[in-house]
Amino acid sequence: MSRIVIRGGLVVTAAEEVHADVLVEGGRVAALASHDSDPARGWTASADRVIDATGKYVIPGGVDVHTHMELPFGGTHASDTFETGTRAAAWGGTTTIVDFAVQSVGESLRAGLDGWHAKADAQCAIDYGFHMILSDVNEDTLKEMDILVEEGVTSFKLFMAYPGVFYSDDGRILRAMQRGADNGGLIMMHAENGIAIDVLVEQALAAGRTDPRYHGEVRHALLEAEATHRAIRLAQVAGSPLYVVHVSAQQAVEQIALARDEGLNVFGETCPQYLFLSTDNLAEPDFEGAKYVCSTPLRPKEHQAVLWRALRTNDLQVVSTDHCPFCFVGQKELGRGDFSKIPNGLPGVENRMDLLHQAVVDGQISRRRWIEIACATPARMFGLYPRKGTIAPGADADIVIYDPGAEQVVSAATHHMNVDYSAYEGKRLRGKARTVMSRGTVVVDQDRYLGRAGHGRYQTRETCQYLV
Amino acid sequence: MSRIVIRGGLVVTAAEEVHADVLVEGGRVAALASHDSDPARGWTASADRVIDATGKYVIPGGVDVHTHMELPFGGTHASDTFETGTRAAAWGGTTTIVDFAVQSVGESLRAGLDGWHAKADAQCAIDYGFHMILSDVNEDTLKEMDILVEEGVTSFKLFMAYPGVFYSDDGRILRAMQRGADNGGLIMMHAENGIAIDVLVEQALAAGRTDPRYHGEVRHALLEAEATHRAIRLAQVAGSPLYVVHVSAQQAVEQIALARDEGLNVFGETCPQYLFLSTDNLAEPDFEGAKYVCSTPLRPKEHQAVLWRALRTNDLQVVSTDHCPFCFVGQKELGRGDFSKIPNGLPGVENRMDLLHQAVVDGQISRRRWIEIACATPARMFGLYPRKGTIAPGADADIVIYDPGAEQVVSAATHHMNVDYSAYEGKRLRGKARTVMSRGTVVVDQDRYLGRAGHGRYQTRETCQYLV
Amino acid sequence: MSRIVIRGGLVVTAAEEVHADVLVEGGRVAALASHDSDPARGWTASADRVIDATGKYVIPGGVDVHTHMELPFGGTHASDTFETGTRAAAWGGTTTIVDFAVQSVGESLRAGLDGWHAKADAQCAIDYGFHMILSDVNEDTLKEMDILVEEGVTSFKLFMAYPGVFYSDDGRILRAMQRGADNGGLIMMHAENGIAIDVLVEQALAAGRTDPRYHGEVRHALLEAEATHRAIRLAQVAGSPLYVVHVSAQQAVEQIALARDEGLNVFGETCPQYLFLSTDNLAEPDFEGAKYVCSTPLRPKEHQAVLWRALRTNDLQVVSTDHCPFCFVGQKELGRGDFSKIPNGLPGVENRMDLLHQAVVDGQISRRRWIEIACATPARMFGLYPRKGTIAPGADADIVIYDPGAEQVVSAATHHMNVDYSAYEGKRLRGKARTVMSRGTVVVDQDRYLGRAGHGRYQTRETCQYLV
Amino acid sequence: MSRIVIRGGLVVTAAEEVHADVLVEGGRVAALASHDSDPARGWTASADRVIDATGKYVIPGGVDVHTHMELPFGGTHASDTFETGTRAAAWGGTTTIVDFAVQSVGESLRAGLDGWHAKADAQCAIDYGFHMILSDVNEDTLKEMDILVEEGVTSFKLFMAYPGVFYSDDGRILRAMQRGADNGGLIMMHAENGIAIDVLVEQALAAGRTDPRYHGEVRHALLEAEATHRAIRLAQVAGSPLYVVHVSAQQAVEQIALARDEGLNVFGETCPQYLFLSTDNLAEPDFEGAKYVCSTPLRPKEHQAVLWRALRTNDLQVVSTDHCPFCFVGQKELGRGDFSKIPNGLPGVENRMDLLHQAVVDGQISRRRWIEIACATPARMFGLYPRKGTIAPGADADIVIYDPGAEQVVSAATHHMNVDYSAYEGKRLRGKARTVMSRGTVVVDQDRYLGRAGHGRYQTRETCQYLV
Repeated sequence: MSRIVIRGGLVVTAAEEVHADVLVEGGRVAALASHDSDPARGWTASADRVIDATGKYVIPGGVDVHTHMELPFGGTHASDTFETGTRAAAWGGTTTIVDFAVQSVGESLRAGLDGWHAKADAQCAIDYGFHMILSDVNEDTLKEMDILVEEGVTSFKLFMAYPGVFYSDDGRILRAMQRGADNGGLIMMHAENGIAIDVLVEQALAAGRTDPRYHGEVRHALLEAEATHRAIRLAQVAGSPLYVVHVSAQQAVEQIALARDEGLNVFGETCPQYLFLSTDNLAEPDFEGAKYVCSTPLRPKEHQAVLWRALRTNDLQVVSTDHCPFCFVGQKELGRGDFSKIPNGLPGVENRMDLLHQAVVDGQISRRRWIEIACATPARMFGLYPRKGTIAPGADADIVIYDPGAEQVVSAATHHMNVDYSAYEGKRLRGKARTVMSRGTVVVDQDRYLGRAGHGRYQTRETCQYLV
Repeated sequence: MSRIVIRGGLVVTAAEEVHADVLVEGGRVAALASHDSDPARGWTASADRVIDATGKYVIPGGVDVHTHMELPFGGTHASDTFETGTRAAAWGGTTTIVDFAVQSVGESLRAGLDGWHAKADAQCAIDYGFHMILSDVNEDTLKEMDILVEEGVTSFKLFMAYPGVFYSDDGRILRAMQRGADNGGLIMMHAENGIAIDVLVEQALAAGRTDPRYHGEVRHALLEAEATHRAIRLAQVAGSPLYVVHVSAQQAVEQIALARDEGLNVFGETCPQYLFLSTDNLAEPDFEGAKYVCSTPLRPKEHQAVLWRALRTNDLQVVSTDHCPFCFVGQKELGRGDFSKIPNGLPGVENRMDLLHQAVVDGQISRRRWIEIACATPARMFGLYPRKGTIAPGADADIVIYDPGAEQVVSAATHHMNVDYSAYEGKRLRGKARTVMSRGTVVVDQDRYLGRAGHGRYQTRETCQYLV
Repeated sequence: MSRIVIRGGLVVTAAEEVHADVLVEGGRVAALASHDSDPARGWTASADRVIDATGKYVIPGGVDVHTHMELPFGGTHASDTFETGTRAAAWGGTTTIVDFAVQSVGESLRAGLDGWHAKADAQCAIDYGFHMILSDVNEDTLKEMDILVEEGVTSFKLFMAYPGVFYSDDGRILRAMQRGADNGGLIMMHAENGIAIDVLVEQALAAGRTDPRYHGEVRHALLEAEATHRAIRLAQVAGSPLYVVHVSAQQAVEQIALARDEGLNVFGETCPQYLFLSTDNLAEPDFEGAKYVCSTPLRPKEHQAVLWRALRTNDLQVVSTDHCPFCFVGQKELGRGDFSKIPNGLPGVENRMDLLHQAVVDGQISRRRWIEIACATPARMFGLYPRKGTIAPGADADIVIYDPGAEQVVSAATHHMNVDYSAYEGKRLRGKARTVMSRGTVVVDQDRYLGRAGHGRYQTRETCQYLV
Repeated sequence: MSRIVIRGGLVVTAAEEVHADVLVEGGRVAALASHDSDPARGWTASADRVIDATGKYVIPGGVDVHTHMELPFGGTHASDTFETGTRAAAWGGTTTIVDFAVQSVGESLRAGLDGWHAKADAQCAIDYGFHMILSDVNEDTLKEMDILVEEGVTSFKLFMAYPGVFYSDDGRILRAMQRGADNGGLIMMHAENGIAIDVLVEQALAAGRTDPRYHGEVRHALLEAEATHRAIRLAQVAGSPLYVVHVSAQQAVEQIALARDEGLNVFGETCPQYLFLSTDNLAEPDFEGAKYVCSTPLRPKEHQAVLWRALRTNDLQVVSTDHCPFCFVGQKELGRGDFSKIPNGLPGVENRMDLLHQAVVDGQISRRRWIEIACATPARMFGLYPRKGTIAPGADADIVIYDPGAEQVVSAATHHMNVDYSAYEGKRLRGKARTVMSRGTVVVDQDRYLGRAGHGRYQTRETCQYLV
């Protein structure tokens, strides 16, 4: 059993910042000791490998609980496979993803889940789990929910948007929430009033407003806030918790904050694109705006400050990526002349940890909060803690040696995601993952990829660890 | 240098629950290792002492940031000295207190602080620090604030109540907040509109309403909420953070929650008496209500649920005791026939950790939240982290082996505080500290007190570690 | 042209209380003069008829903007025809109703409206107008909306409840609101999440909970609040005003109050049943609860105080009856063993003015507010002012001589509505209409009915007179 | 007894807009009749005088409940006497003022009131009443409050600002509110935290920030909001209603709106300067900003929209002027080099009705709302209704024939106030009073002043007519 010591770094977790050496044995964190203590000295002497982390942060690997590898959408597929996407994640310091298996209408959950296992099996560079998208709530699929929770698929996404595709009506939502309240499954909600939005889409197109920027106008912030409020009240009626995905509008944040003040188990996630990009990007000329088409959509710049504030006040708890890349050429272009045909989604799984570290540098969040929203809370929210999301005795040795002083410029020319553009092209960032370890195996080191497809293991998950 | 291993327990901190052995060297936590790991086995073999914690929790010692040992009040003194009070604290699993040094009107801060050092020096069973009560804000004392912050007295309490004694008007409060915004000193506020309350006191007495229960009526919940709102807005004008002590009224919690939703650095503390007692106690016959006279006062029972909710939603962050005991005989009795002459204060420093553990048993809060509100957050709030409040490499070995299954009945007959009654007489609690360690020295073990006056060391403190 | 003088009374309108004599000429109010003035003396001398109102109130006839005469519902019909229902209204001091014409799915608005004209034509004792229920929003019916507004049918009711019957989805609602924003038609909303409610109904029945009281449980207050919020935000997106009918839940009132604080043109109506009855009535044994089944349902008693407060704070603006009577025998009984089959509705058109006067006696509202919520505001809201709803030169002489000191006991034995029970059986009330005049014609006088079917004229209406 | 008929106009009151002729007999409104009715025709034939109002509005004379004629302030006096000020008011269509009699510290209320009577006696062009400023709340003055209420001085102003001059502490405020709750006197509050403001003033001056614009900075909006909240809660404890004068800050409006949503009897007034002017004016160069120094101060422009919205939503109920003019030369100039020495106050009594009519033209408020906030509500709030504030049988014939189409340019060159500048110099307004009648006497007609000092009569007032 190999013994690795990471010495001299500042171990930063959601809770602590300590100068400690970390002993890794058998793919797990065996112990932490003060850098200058007897035990630490002893480990160094007897280790198979000593990694020097002096001047660096030693942080838990990132946990990205919202990715869509190879997702079929609008007649095409997200351009990252599990192989390319998880490799890119590793490059960016993320060591666990939870991807969304899709149940199609008329299909069983099992069939959908099997399909996703088939795609991911033996492909992943890092560990992965699955949420289940519930497209067809009925007596059969409600029973399957129970089984999946037992098996470790403990979260289920529903859509208030996309009528005719993923959409569930309020009755189906209520039923799924009631079931989740019983079996422990956490309901994740895409909260936009898709029925109303589709009317606005049709009207916009009929009026010749076909440019990507109209995507942002028809998906009205009030219709995100409305659906968020509705989901909260349905959850309250069902007695179930609720996790709202990709919150982008200030008014939606307000609804979540109100619910939390009432003591309800309501949680919210946002994504880097909402924190760093805006409708200004959607309005870029020459159809460039299409690169930024995702749903919920980007909002006017002034929403960003509210999202940052909510991350500080814990009204939002998680930053995930909603990674769902489509190439500009050939994919985003499907929507030229009709914004509603642009595949919805952005690349980002590789950039999240660095973008959020930049926010630390900029004073938006503290160093510990960075780890909390990007590693610890997502792990806890989806039943992976303390295996993932922290550095503590017994935890998986998913560890990143992070250089806070490194400088990088984000670019499609250098990124590792399988997509022909970057949403953050040219952006200068401070900080970079130097060494990335997955269960004790170094998969990225000093700009070399040392991992392999199939190293990543499927993770069964416990139920949400946040409820009182 | 003695080496102690605490083995086999569940280490519970604000962030983690791990089965780990803890190595203590030289009064500090040297390392944590998985119970079944090689390092852990090695430690046990070479340790000077092995403490078996199987089936127990291994938790950080409690941090009680609101005590008043020997406080002069209303012509008498709080009945616990630093010697008796800190010994009782140790019995109850608390290993650090922050007490309030008092500046009297016309006196310098230095004189007040020196007086408190004189009382505590060589008396304490556990470590201690000081906040400073600012009774007289003027140019000289504002300058002294800077010096005290430099020296490690980094928090200053002001009173909106007690005109003629501790009271500061809004101008003085604003000046002190401005200074704190500059020098990093955290303003702690007793938020009650004492000017208005004194009118109601006078009217009640004039109308013959002299019983202790009128203490609860004249100190109106709205007048706590009012002062809380006022303190928040003054802090906002000054650009300073604010810590509101002993929050008891639902309406005051609402003001704090609103301010926090706005992203302001506003913090709130409550105390066990507000969580477990109510105006029903104040109304006990035969002057027994006097035992429960403290300010802010106990509130009607329905406020308790709001306080518990706020502890869960993090609208309140700290539970301290406001320990300020007066014997019923001879002290509380000063107020027979005039509730306004009853010395204000309750004993509690020994009971806090157990009462809050009972709340864990009752499902009010999680195990980690227990440690967060009683150990980690108070330490962080007042600049003692990570020395105090957690179990991590490098931290002081202030550790409690806590037996979650033990049963006890609270009683003045068995408690160790120097006061002739208990506010919780007869209350059955689950859980008890079995072994209490202060900087690696066992001070309480299996119902024996092994500590000594003078073991406890004065702690200089950094500034508040919570501000973004 | 007949000249009538009403002399010696206290003229009470929404705005004024003046001792004035009222001159009626040609069915209209010609003039008001101080009782003791020269003109008043002159009128008395030359009048065809002098009505002595000494010691009485002289008030505008009531305007009830929510009635359902002969409504087909659940396989039966509301038991009052336009003849019996408007006669009962006159007895109760109401001189104008606005009833709901129904468009059935697949039918044109015109066809629905024609049907309602056919029912009401030559039948009514008092004046009447129509709102239009929109059951089928499509391109054709949206165009018809424009025409109807032109013709004086200026308000349109939509349902978020009753899927498969009246229900419109959010897209149809949005379209109708957009059209209303253009053509001036006011959208009236039945705000309950019927899709979710139907799930709860099905579950309740499956669990054997068939008693009328479950009607109140499945139609959850949160599902009224949810729909109210949703309607408000859809209206905001559409840029249209909104009138929420029969508000019964405290949480729905809160949503309306919030919207009004934001300055939105959102209005709310409640009904006497929500102000005076509660779930206690729904729980009456022996299926008696069925008498109180209506939707939105009766709520627990504590909601009443909130509704009264909202009437005082103008967060609710109108009290109508939602008069929709079904006999207990043969009609309500259709739902024995299945509460969902009980026809929804209560009688009340005759009782509204008196119940609200009792609220004046009880101190819930002022005398002027009584007239405002029962006469003036409903008239203004639906484009009938100042023809209806006030006593001013030029207004229709719809006038009630009201005896504030009269005592009555409400009973099915004495009421004039065509229904075999009273929802307020045995309730003692202070106050009673002594003389009721419709356009200058006395239709009720001293407990005699002097009117006739066909006296009442159809009223075309202007658009809502409340928008800024 | 003279008979005057005003014929052909549109009578606009808070509640109605009717084409009616008005008969005035003996200084009162005797009757209103439809323009084309028999009675109206009869009156014209027999009248002493017929005033043609064709194409004009016939409105109640304005009621300005906040003026400070001849007020001693900062070592000088407000430049309008009761003679010049009330004449200017008449020119502007205002026919009643309520001025503030001042009790000085150590003086009785009676002495203060007598002093004001002496100033006003035989001087006024229009009717007038008095509020009483309470500078010294003590047992004697509380008893005097009872007597004054009996005599018809039914409102009392307290100051949370101006320590050492008008300031009352919270205990005195509470006592006065309690007394008002008993005797019916309405407490009016200047809500600014003057204790905190004085600290900021001192700091600003010490830092050399002496320009008028710093007046706006030191009187922080949050300190208005704070005091507003405090006054509300003190009133709630006392069980008394509250009227907040000259509300200028958005955050203060929010506090009032919240209190009103709770159903509290809390009322708010704003003034034209806050609706039309801003800190941009305070920042005018060459000490011109001094012209706009008043307290509460002008706020940044974005507050204006919130004030207008609050007037529409009835969160604010009254617009008065706080007329308190000081000449620029010789008076405002006292504060050159020290903004705190600039006498606080603006002229405005002549401009209010016209400025608010311009808001009607601009679509900010409706025509009826104009009359409500400027005539009816102030009359009702301060016990003058229906004598003042409306046109109804029995009301005083205080009537203005208002030409909505007239154009005027506001200027000190043409105004009638005794002050050497206008706060609205050069502003173009639509609308002007053509004929102004006070108790049936024409005092202004077609740009000629026909009144006389001494025509105006002192008005005893009832208590507030708004409380439920």
